[in-house]
Amino acid sequence: MPAFNITEKEVRVFAPATVANVVCGFDVLGFAVNEPGDEVIMRITDKPGITISKITGDDGRLPLNPDKNTVSVSVKHYLQSIGRADIGLDIELHKKMPIGSGLGSSSASTVGGLFAIKTLLGDTSDPINLLPFAMKGEEMACGHGHADNVAPALFGGFVLVRSYEPLDVVRLPHPKELYCAIVFPDVDVPTREARQIIRNKIQMKDAVTQWGNIAGLVSGLFMGDIDLIGRSMKDVLVEPVRSMLIPDFYKMREIAMETGAVSFGISGSGPSVFAFTKDEETARIITQKLQKHLTGIKIGSQAYVSPINDAGPKVI
Amino acid sequence: MPAFNITEKEVRVFAPATVANVVCGFDVLGFAVNEPGDEVIMRITDKPGITISKITGDDGRLPLNPDKNTVSVSVKHYLQSIGRADIGLDIELHKKMPIGSGLGSSSASTVGGLFAIKTLLGDTSDPINLLPFAMKGEEMACGHGHADNVAPALFGGFVLVRSYEPLDVVRLPHPKELYCAIVFPDVDVPTREARQIIRNKIQMKDAVTQWGNIAGLVSGLFMGDIDLIGRSMKDVLVEPVRSMLIPDFYKMREIAMETGAVSFGISGSGPSVFAFTKDEETARIITQKLQKHLTGIKIGSQAYVSPINDAGPKVI
Repeated sequence: MPAFNITEKEVRVFAPATVANVVCGFDVLGFAVNEPGDEVIMRITDKPGITISKITGDDGRLPLNPDKNTVSVSVKHYLQSIGRADIGLDIELHKKMPIGSGLGSSSASTVGGLFAIKTLLGDTSDPINLLPFAMKGEEMACGHGHADNVAPALFGGFVLVRSYEPLDVVRLPHPKELYCAIVFPDVDVPTREARQIIRNKIQMKDAVTQWGNIAGLVSGLFMGDIDLIGRSMKDVLVEPVRSMLIPDFYKMREIAMETGAVSFGISGSGPSVFAFTKDEETARIITQKLQKHLTGIKIGSQAYVSPINDAGPKVI
Repeated sequence: MPAFNITEKEVRVFAPATVANVVCGFDVLGFAVNEPGDEVIMRITDKPGITISKITGDDGRLPLNPDKNTVSVSVKHYLQSIGRADIGLDIELHKKMPIGSGLGSSSASTVGGLFAIKTLLGDTSDPINLLPFAMKGEEMACGHGHADNVAPALFGGFVLVRSYEPLDVVRLPHPKELYCAIVFPDVDVPTREARQIIRNKIQMKDAVTQWGNIAGLVSGLFMGDIDLIGRSMKDVLVEPVRSMLIPDFYKMREIAMETGAVSFGISGSGPSVFAFTKDEETARIITQKLQKHLTGIKIGSQAYVSPINDAGPKVI
């Protein structure tokens, strides 16, 4: 085991937003984007224990209590696991993305915190070692320790969570030209509720359709075949239910596809939606049209255009 | 459209057996092997229409009536589609593999016939054009027009049938060192019955496990990662039911895995079972041990050892 000695006193980290599920990969696929994302500033302090001195951008929704905040809780688990619970830390969390948006907001914060402490300790081991601690944070934030947001936030790129017991994650390639257009319609879709409306029992034939599609999507990612990626991104199981929570979901799909999107779907549990495109310009036009449509039905929104983020978290 | 003129008078074709489902890819994945397989001899005759003059190796189970044999029926559909129903043909079918074994017996015959007529007519177009006709044969043989046997028999290698409507097949790569050990326990498991015992309704959580695994298998095939292929080849939905029709299935799995198999499962709808290995020798030992075990419980068997067949059907 490495020494885990303090090598820096302060660090500022960016960690990316993530799109989980990716339409046909419910609970097992996710990818990271360049924006939005969260920033975490972490400082070594003299007194053992973790404090959170400041949170911005959360409208007062996130707890400063270090026992209740996903960032400090996951960092605490990490420090305990490496036998350095003696270290004193102060955390500033700057939310640069909407909470409850379906963009992996809590995952970005958690991964930012874990990457910050890893950096302060000069821990150069594979980031996969941080995944179990990030999942602890997810468990507190969402009520379940899923990895389809934290894994891509931690590694960057596309990630498959093949199995949870034992944890088995696979990093997937992707065509470099793929762009992502994201629109967050400002309506409330809590993750817990979005999970609860999903059916427990499904038709075998629908499941076969779904795993044909995820196999097609994964093939398309490896082959760099954007048309195959687009053809495969269909969801006959989750989207028909979750789309009901998103204003004008099918109208937005129509707009995106008519504007040249490769595919369109719900990001995570929503309400954010995303489209893949073959270039930045098309992604930009799609976000503009979708935002215009949402304004027309009196719903505010935020939009982001980004390639797939291959770097994961980084020191800024 | 090409001319489709007769370029040869007689041809002898081999078409390979196939393993469908591949454990976690029920109804969407399949691959071809070098042995066993069927042979079709096809001759141009003077009189329009198709005759079947000889079938060997079928114990009298297959019809000589050209309206009821999958080979002639699919060839007839092909000839009609290219406007050459005027051509006269005689077919000899030499079954070199067991019928009702779960190894794509009818697909091998059908693909053999289609490849034979394609060869006689000098038709060099992509074999994918034959797929709809091969599926017609499957529909007659099994009561459903599935493609997970005929597609790999036709193309060789690993094939994903991403979608049926529209038909969308993807050819997948595989590690060259992968070997396949096949054992056919001589018990009767008709395809129709094997389908009927599968549940129509399943748990969403089991479906998620399954599509995590198929995504892992496809990733492993592209990455050449045999361990990932092995870890991914688990089936929580179909195997628990179909394995009941196969004598000592779980004991056979134990023997195969203890002998160094990468994975073990049911071929198609069974009763054949197969194991992947990293070399020919291990595959051979596994078949020997499995056959010995089956002999011990008074069940006859046939065994085959083969790499993945990348060529598909061929003139011999």
